[in-house]
Amino acid sequence: MEEVAIGIDIGGTNTVFGLIDRNGKNLGEGSVSTGSYSDIEMFLLALYEQINVLISNAEEEMQIKGVGIVAPMGNYKKGTIEHAVNLPWRGIIPLAKSFEKICRKPVLVTNDANAAAIGEMVFGGAKGMKDFIMITLGTGLGGGVVTNGDLVYGHDGFAGEIGHIKVDPQGRICNCGKRGCLETYASATGIKRTVFELLADSNKKSELRYISYNELDAKKIHEEAKKGDQIALDAFDYTGKILGKVLADCVAFSNPEAIFLLGGLANAGKYIFDPTKHYMEKNLLTVYKNKVKIQPSKLDGANAAVLGSSALVWKELPGSI
Amino acid sequence: MEEVAIGIDIGGTNTVFGLIDRNGKNLGEGSVSTGSYSDIEMFLLALYEQINVLISNAEEEMQIKGVGIVAPMGNYKKGTIEHAVNLPWRGIIPLAKSFEKICRKPVLVTNDANAAAIGEMVFGGAKGMKDFIMITLGTGLGGGVVTNGDLVYGHDGFAGEIGHIKVDPQGRICNCGKRGCLETYASATGIKRTVFELLADSNKKSELRYISYNELDAKKIHEEAKKGDQIALDAFDYTGKILGKVLADCVAFSNPEAIFLLGGLANAGKYIFDPTKHYMEKNLLTVYKNKVKIQPSKLDGANAAVLGSSALVWKELPGSI
Repeated sequence: MEEVAIGIDIGGTNTVFGLIDRNGKNLGEGSVSTGSYSDIEMFLLALYEQINVLISNAEEEMQIKGVGIVAPMGNYKKGTIEHAVNLPWRGIIPLAKSFEKICRKPVLVTNDANAAAIGEMVFGGAKGMKDFIMITLGTGLGGGVVTNGDLVYGHDGFAGEIGHIKVDPQGRICNCGKRGCLETYASATGIKRTVFELLADSNKKSELRYISYNELDAKKIHEEAKKGDQIALDAFDYTGKILGKVLADCVAFSNPEAIFLLGGLANAGKYIFDPTKHYMEKNLLTVYKNKVKIQPSKLDGANAAVLGSSALVWKELPGSI
Repeated sequence: MEEVAIGIDIGGTNTVFGLIDRNGKNLGEGSVSTGSYSDIEMFLLALYEQINVLISNAEEEMQIKGVGIVAPMGNYKKGTIEHAVNLPWRGIIPLAKSFEKICRKPVLVTNDANAAAIGEMVFGGAKGMKDFIMITLGTGLGGGVVTNGDLVYGHDGFAGEIGHIKVDPQGRICNCGKRGCLETYASATGIKRTVFELLADSNKKSELRYISYNELDAKKIHEEAKKGDQIALDAFDYTGKILGKVLADCVAFSNPEAIFLLGGLANAGKYIFDPTKHYMEKNLLTVYKNKVKIQPSKLDGANAAVLGSSALVWKELPGSI
């Protein structure tokens, strides 16, 4: 009988899940519309039903090892979702406890950057690494820090909030209510804000002058950069300058072997990796120079959260791996 | 027979050592003049002889569990001292290996901030804590980071270099060759530089105008602050502003339960703790607010390095504690 972990990625619109074996192979997947359930219990029952349908339709018989769930504001230490603004459920949700009652298996909860770090360690490019940092560059910037072979959750379960390291006290307004947080510069949204600042500051010609703020995304900026658009290239350089400087500070703090980048902005390849690496090296203390790799995550972006949440099961539950 | 750890603190002028039991009790201490030995082997033989004299003169019979050594640029992972500018020995010194040959006991090496962190965990105010940060505010600023109950050494053994986090790319010149490192502001030397900047910038009356740069130290600035000297008070506020901001970033990274301050500048008590705490809280993300303690180390400053190096033995060697 095959042992599988269930990986679940709860998003604001959809919740995706997969049955993942201990080698990271996806043996089946499905989804549930998060937005359709204003009641968390009804949502979890519907989710459990969908998972059961998937398992009973599978060719092989499966035994569930455990459940890993990635959710915005997911707290590993408490097994909760706390005040997630993009989900239909308010306040503090005792997610692990509620779903354990339904599925009678151990349930682990975390956020997407922590799950990605564990996924990278169990299935991806960080296999065998004891010290590394995962950076997710999506709407915001998330961080997952691994030291001595374990994820750093911190005292309250909120470690890795690298996106809220301050880069400029008078800087851009952040969703957290403060100014100048790293993620207002280094994220898919951050580079969009940079493009608009550059369009305002300079008179350089650019195709990006024909695109509205709400239509623009990191992918379009990447496409224009490939065509040699100077505003797009400047935006990547500026983003790498700010990100690289903070990563140098992170290296001084935890001296990782590698830093992995994942998510929309990381898909821009050399356009984001080259300036980030350049400015990080420029800011590094001599003892770290040319030692820390910056590399793309080896997790498939589309499935990173499902893989990562299942990796939590394989890594953290007794008897795993 | 009493089991003891030998704690050794190698400094540029003197090397101090102590016999420390597993409760942190100092059962005897001695010292050797570091500067008198241009040959490391001769130095280690002299040190070993002094230790043996101490042991043979002790009332009780002792068994040595192991040796912990704190040294500038001490690297735990390699057991070396690497390019320490203030010691008589050049290049990379295989300290652990050399001393193990002489004393035939396990020898562990680290730097002062890491040793202080372990000392705090084993003997001081961090007993039972799994996540905390130690900051030493001496000539420079050292950091020791503990996550999941273990010290973070990092991939190359150089984690915790918080003193070299950049606070201003155009800032003060640092001994590391860069500009704007935290320790050029937040350290016993840093606050002295701040006093001189403030004396130059303002016309405020101050007793500090009668003291030369080389005569001034953190203790004198503290004394003047107690008398209400505005330059001294402004200097502490400015130091706390810069230190507090970086500590908020450190909290975002590793979410510690507490941050301990130790060393010359930390002895200024409320004058340094109050502004540091104030500015840290001001910069913290909501989830961390009013949760992270900033407190003085409970290690006796004069003996912190000897205690810390012996704590390394009690914590890291099999069968300890």
